Amino acid sequence: MRSSSPLGEFDIIEKYFQQSKLRQDVLLGVGDDAALVIPAENSQIAISTDTLVEGVHFFSDIPPHALGHKALAVNLSDMAAMGAEPRWVTLAITLPGVDETWLEQFCSGFFDLAEYFNVSLIGGDTTKGPLSITVTVHGIVPAGKALYRSGAKPGDRVYVTGSLGDSGLALAHLQQQLSLTPQQLELSLKRHYYPLPRVLAGYGLRDVASAAIDISDGLYNDLQHILRQSHCSATLNLEHIPMSETLSEAVGVDRGLQFALTGGEDYELCFTVPESNKGSLETALAYSGVPYTVIGQLAPGTGEIRLHYQEQPYHLEGLGWDHFSHENK
Amino acid sequence: MRSSSPLGEFDIIEKYFQQSKLRQDVLLGVGDDAALVIPAENSQIAISTDTLVEGVHFFSDIPPHALGHKALAVNLSDMAAMGAEPRWVTLAITLPGVDETWLEQFCSGFFDLAEYFNVSLIGGDTTKGPLSITVTVHGIVPAGKALYRSGAKPGDRVYVTGSLGDSGLALAHLQQQLSLTPQQLELSLKRHYYPLPRVLAGYGLRDVASAAIDISDGLYNDLQHILRQSHCSATLNLEHIPMSETLSEAVGVDRGLQFALTGGEDYELCFTVPESNKGSLETALAYSGVPYTVIGQLAPGTGEIRLHYQEQPYHLEGLGWDHFSHENK
Repeated sequence: MRSSSPLGEFDIIEKYFQQSKLRQDVLLGVGDDAALVIPAENSQIAISTDTLVEGVHFFSDIPPHALGHKALAVNLSDMAAMGAEPRWVTLAITLPGVDETWLEQFCSGFFDLAEYFNVSLIGGDTTKGPLSITVTVHGIVPAGKALYRSGAKPGDRVYVTGSLGDSGLALAHLQQQLSLTPQQLELSLKRHYYPLPRVLAGYGLRDVASAAIDISDGLYNDLQHILRQSHCSATLNLEHIPMSETLSEAVGVDRGLQFALTGGEDYELCFTVPESNKGSLETALAYSGVPYTVIGQLAPGTGEIRLHYQEQPYHLEGLGWDHFSHENK
Repeated sequence: MRSSSPLGEFDIIEKYFQQSKLRQDVLLGVGDDAALVIPAENSQIAISTDTLVEGVHFFSDIPPHALGHKALAVNLSDMAAMGAEPRWVTLAITLPGVDETWLEQFCSGFFDLAEYFNVSLIGGDTTKGPLSITVTVHGIVPAGKALYRSGAKPGDRVYVTGSLGDSGLALAHLQQQLSLTPQQLELSLKRHYYPLPRVLAGYGLRDVASAAIDISDGLYNDLQHILRQSHCSATLNLEHIPMSETLSEAVGVDRGLQFALTGGEDYELCFTVPESNKGSLETALAYSGVPYTVIGQLAPGTGEIRLHYQEQPYHLEGLGWDHFSHENK
């Protein structure tokens, strides 16, 4: 009874969002009242949700392939920070209209990453309205092995994976706050559009880290969550903050540090390790192939972060970001 | 470092969305990288997502308390249709700004219903943008007991719970397609704003029904999903379709049937029962206290619905609705 063209809601779901191949622990995927999955024995389930809104979390000219990748990546990054193995994902997408080229590219970005991590799209909702994407991801973690934000202790060392600040650098270029060379833009934009969640590193950290978080709002902000929930403070040695050559070449060390600490959207992991586990860390992360760097140490406290550069106190401008409070500052 | 007023994202979450009391199977709720829950033994997990967008799924003048109720209710209704026990829910809410009165009332509607069904809010996301709400609900169903859309067989009887069409009647008044008396409006608006998901009936149906679906897009559309996925057709005896006195008084039987079959947003269950289970049905639904009515029977087919009224063929106008294809018709 429905008009055959253009595509209706059910046609869109069938054509773009119904995967032909699903994980074996998925009994029902897209197409019933709910999906149905089989949890693993002796495991707990980690669940996380993130929304990306056009004009707030991304510009309207973002390549749809990158948007599809990123919408899933930011959620997988939360699984990594819990030490969880991502398995099932739902996608609620609100579209202003049906643009099949856009949908194809979005889905290609989304499913490429999903297949890489063996994650199945099991359900969702397709609605009409201002462009926005909400992904909920479900992962499995062996009972008692999840990484909390609250497990850090005074004396633990602070680490980060990879390098920080490139994503913020690309954003600053897109916002015309600075101008990058074509090569600098290409390298940093890749980090901004195609963050690779540190899922494998998360598995390795289950037995050695005391706490972990993924860096979405900038190291400075995200580390504070660990500190507050663990009743600690931290001293960071900024000369050890890992930065790419692109970043330091483009803006120098001082401004580079600002991007590394507050730029956000790095989707690296920040984690803490007790001295007693320092030796096991290398083995634990070796098979993930992820580089990591020690950047500081914890002390008792209530969330304070002391910044040092070559043992001298260091002042940093422009800390923090909040979509709600920012516009009213 | 953040401005203390108005509320930022983390303040909103802490003040409105962090429940003080959580189910015992919730190890981590709002406030870490992901929530962490313990699945039940020998059970499967049902997962469903629904998005409500302002101007598409609700008008901007909907009372926020009703919106909070409805955003959760439509998802719990999917659990009911699976025979699942809802346990954990995530809420992704996109708000144009911070209106504390609105937030209080929205949360009151949401949490009243959550507490009624012992469902815990375990996570979500609060973002800035055009008003939209995405809820993902997780339920538990004993292994092998979930109700699929695909399980119906020729010969099975077709049933619905409660009565149909009141919600569509209220919507037609809000859209100024007709004018109700204050009393008619009050009764039908209650069904439109405050649907009560048939969760208890869903439990009862696990052992007797062959298929089930919840009626969100109208009986005619939703029954077709069962028929297509079960390779059946159906004959409906329209004189048995349960309608409220309000509905038949307001618009008469013919137009009443149109609302009952195509109005949508009833959130009753439509289910099928083999003849052999007819006797057990009464016992199975007795403790839920939910009224139900037999309205037809299945035959082999590919989704056809034959409408009869007192054994005569019946023609019905205006079947179906789709947010995407509608505007282009």
